[in-house]
Amino acid sequence: MLKPSIPKGTRDFNPEEVSRRNYIFNVIKEAFSLYGFQPIETPSFENSETLMGKYGEEGDRLIFKILNSGDFLSKVDDAIYSQKNSGKVTSLISEKALRYDLTVPFARYVVQHQNDITFPFKRYQIQPVWRADRPQKGRFREFFQCDADVVGSTSLWQEVEFIQLYDAVFTKLALPGVTIKINNRKILSGIAETIGAEDKLTDFTVALDKLDKIGEEGVKNEMLAKGISEEALLKLQPLFSLKGSNDEKLHSLKTLLESSEIGLKGVEELRFIQSNINSLELGSCELKIDVTLARGLNYYTGAILEVAAPEEVNMGSIGGGGRYDDLTGIFGLKDMSGVGISFGLDRIYLVLDELHLFPQSVAENSKALFINFGEKEALYAMNAIKKLRQAGITVELYPEDSKMGKQMGYADKRNIPFAILAGEKEMEAKEFTVKNMKTGEQKSLGYSDLEQTLR
Amino acid sequence: MLKPSIPKGTRDFNPEEVSRRNYIFNVIKEAFSLYGFQPIETPSFENSETLMGKYGEEGDRLIFKILNSGDFLSKVDDAIYSQKNSGKVTSLISEKALRYDLTVPFARYVVQHQNDITFPFKRYQIQPVWRADRPQKGRFREFFQCDADVVGSTSLWQEVEFIQLYDAVFTKLALPGVTIKINNRKILSGIAETIGAEDKLTDFTVALDKLDKIGEEGVKNEMLAKGISEEALLKLQPLFSLKGSNDEKLHSLKTLLESSEIGLKGVEELRFIQSNINSLELGSCELKIDVTLARGLNYYTGAILEVAAPEEVNMGSIGGGGRYDDLTGIFGLKDMSGVGISFGLDRIYLVLDELHLFPQSVAENSKALFINFGEKEALYAMNAIKKLRQAGITVELYPEDSKMGKQMGYADKRNIPFAILAGEKEMEAKEFTVKNMKTGEQKSLGYSDLEQTLR
Repeated sequence: MLKPSIPKGTRDFNPEEVSRRNYIFNVIKEAFSLYGFQPIETPSFENSETLMGKYGEEGDRLIFKILNSGDFLSKVDDAIYSQKNSGKVTSLISEKALRYDLTVPFARYVVQHQNDITFPFKRYQIQPVWRADRPQKGRFREFFQCDADVVGSTSLWQEVEFIQLYDAVFTKLALPGVTIKINNRKILSGIAETIGAEDKLTDFTVALDKLDKIGEEGVKNEMLAKGISEEALLKLQPLFSLKGSNDEKLHSLKTLLESSEIGLKGVEELRFIQSNINSLELGSCELKIDVTLARGLNYYTGAILEVAAPEEVNMGSIGGGGRYDDLTGIFGLKDMSGVGISFGLDRIYLVLDELHLFPQSVAENSKALFINFGEKEALYAMNAIKKLRQAGITVELYPEDSKMGKQMGYADKRNIPFAILAGEKEMEAKEFTVKNMKTGEQKSLGYSDLEQTLR
Repeated sequence: MLKPSIPKGTRDFNPEEVSRRNYIFNVIKEAFSLYGFQPIETPSFENSETLMGKYGEEGDRLIFKILNSGDFLSKVDDAIYSQKNSGKVTSLISEKALRYDLTVPFARYVVQHQNDITFPFKRYQIQPVWRADRPQKGRFREFFQCDADVVGSTSLWQEVEFIQLYDAVFTKLALPGVTIKINNRKILSGIAETIGAEDKLTDFTVALDKLDKIGEEGVKNEMLAKGISEEALLKLQPLFSLKGSNDEKLHSLKTLLESSEIGLKGVEELRFIQSNINSLELGSCELKIDVTLARGLNYYTGAILEVAAPEEVNMGSIGGGGRYDDLTGIFGLKDMSGVGISFGLDRIYLVLDELHLFPQSVAENSKALFINFGEKEALYAMNAIKKLRQAGITVELYPEDSKMGKQMGYADKRNIPFAILAGEKEMEAKEFTVKNMKTGEQKSLGYSDLEQTLR
């Protein structure tokens, strides 16, 4: 018999990993909740038509499709069947698909339940998504997304709150050196307008996004190759060397974009956000204006946010988000502006692990193992165990009355800090012998001292 | 454009539903943890060969299969393809499937990670499962299972602890009138042996399981139809009228089964469990020996448990479990005895809802809405909001400086208990006007009194 395995790109999580992941989830959830976001959950699979066509051709390919039940081939027309064309057959034998992200299901939710929702609607959602991506280091076929969004309001206070929320989470996780980068799509549009390349905005932002990776020359070459003129690039030069404080950058941008209405609108939005964040002060994060920030997604229309891990870990972004002006239009509900952010759980996990920032107390583990000396002694132990659990203290009885060495070995391997021995002598004295597994120290205690020791 | 919808048998959960479900999950999780169980998680989909053939023919049909990516038809031999036989094609175009329960993935996990596990291994797992069942009231195609199991020990103390665990959860949920029914597969085997129908044990237990539904005559007729003799049924008569306390039932069973070694073993196991539970005392649940309890699953070998909801709600079982002697044998790891229980989340939800037992405080909601009077006032509000959130109090700012009526209407619809008004006058006095949304009462408070009021 083959040793069993799991599909590539998926993971088993052992108790330590689950506890650590839950630690991060809980910090994020608590922050979402404190900021007034409410949880929703959507099904793991959606009707295919809800998902297909929403993520581009590449996205459609990466969506996991679920095979129809029963005699699914009977619904396929013989003429089509005989062509043996996977693309044409897919939609005939599969009507459901695993969700690819949380954004499209959220849009579907808002439209479907619009009459029961009070807008502006602040929701959060923490659920797994699935992508048939080529698995590689840090990229999985099943992973959790942690999203918070507000729909139904254009107020910039929401961008302010999202920055505070990021800061609250990373401060709570005691992760120092996190940078929250901010840009505005309107500034990018303004720049394109200023250099006369409005029609090339996508090429332009895609190239600009690579500044960190391929450097100034690389970006310029790509832009030239895409048909952006030398003259335009010259006008653009100040952008590549935008330095100094956020205030100084805002000042330079205002000058650079003085002839673009949309560009100035973007500068004004950035100013609002940055000056209010300044007044309110962040905890451990730094807010940094970064005009090279474009992010892949074409649907951002206002603020663009990205969170960079501390520089000493080579991790890239651990969160991102922004404002989009037409989330629900794809399902027929127009003019519903939204803004949202997302946390990259897997990467945050790797960062905390690398920097040894998981608190020791995260792992759920028993405080003590009661040694089993036989039915009567075990019942005596179980009476104490019952009381300790009622007091909220995790303890276990070794299930078998095996040899001491075996039972102690179990406590040792499981890293359980105390072993409790209660044989005939202890039962008579109504006591428990408590052994510290690290120091080997032993003492005899009554029940309340025992509870005190384990607390 | 069609109004978007979700696949039949699946559900969206709104904020109130998510909060209530989480309330139940958290009570169960806390109990699992207190009893020394540790969390694991497995992927949503497994390799098909891990799942197929483990749940019988019917089960195989109900497993959701995932279509291979890319040009999946190219791997199907033309000769087979031309037959257009869905059954034959399935395994050629689908290599993965959504998990059908948590038990088989757990068995796979134990075998795959056996060298990293310290046995006995106490694990819990709370994750969704998927079944292509016909959807009906209370039965869904996606639902959560909440399982706890111990593998690697035959100690009956584990059965004792699982009964305590059930009791701890339902006591914590303040659900009165829950009955934990217990039986033992060895008793059923002993009965079959006694009446000389060893080969008909499955028919026998399936029929006996229906005693509540079709009555004594119905069960007897079914047994006769299955070839169990009149004489055997006569011997069996005491079983249909087994009454009285658990002790009395044990006494009768011991007499009835005196010639069956395995039957007496079952009686002795039941006695151990029942007498120790008696000594340790339960909170709100009642433990009841029920020899008609057989449950569908054929793999139980010792204790069989089932939890019945309070009689006044018509709900059937809200949990179940038992001991199985060969969980991991299907994956090549022999002699690994296990025992486990499961909670029926959806049914527990319905019971708590019907009996109005969800605490009011379950729903995550903001304590106060700060009214937005414009940028300067909003910043003043945001300073207080920041401090309140740091103090763990959930509050929000209305994002737009809309008309008062609209903002108040939002607080009202969202059931937010307080509205906080802070205009120029309040800013000068460093105060906040707090309006109780229920009584309409208003008062002006400094920050620390405000925090006090909202706590």
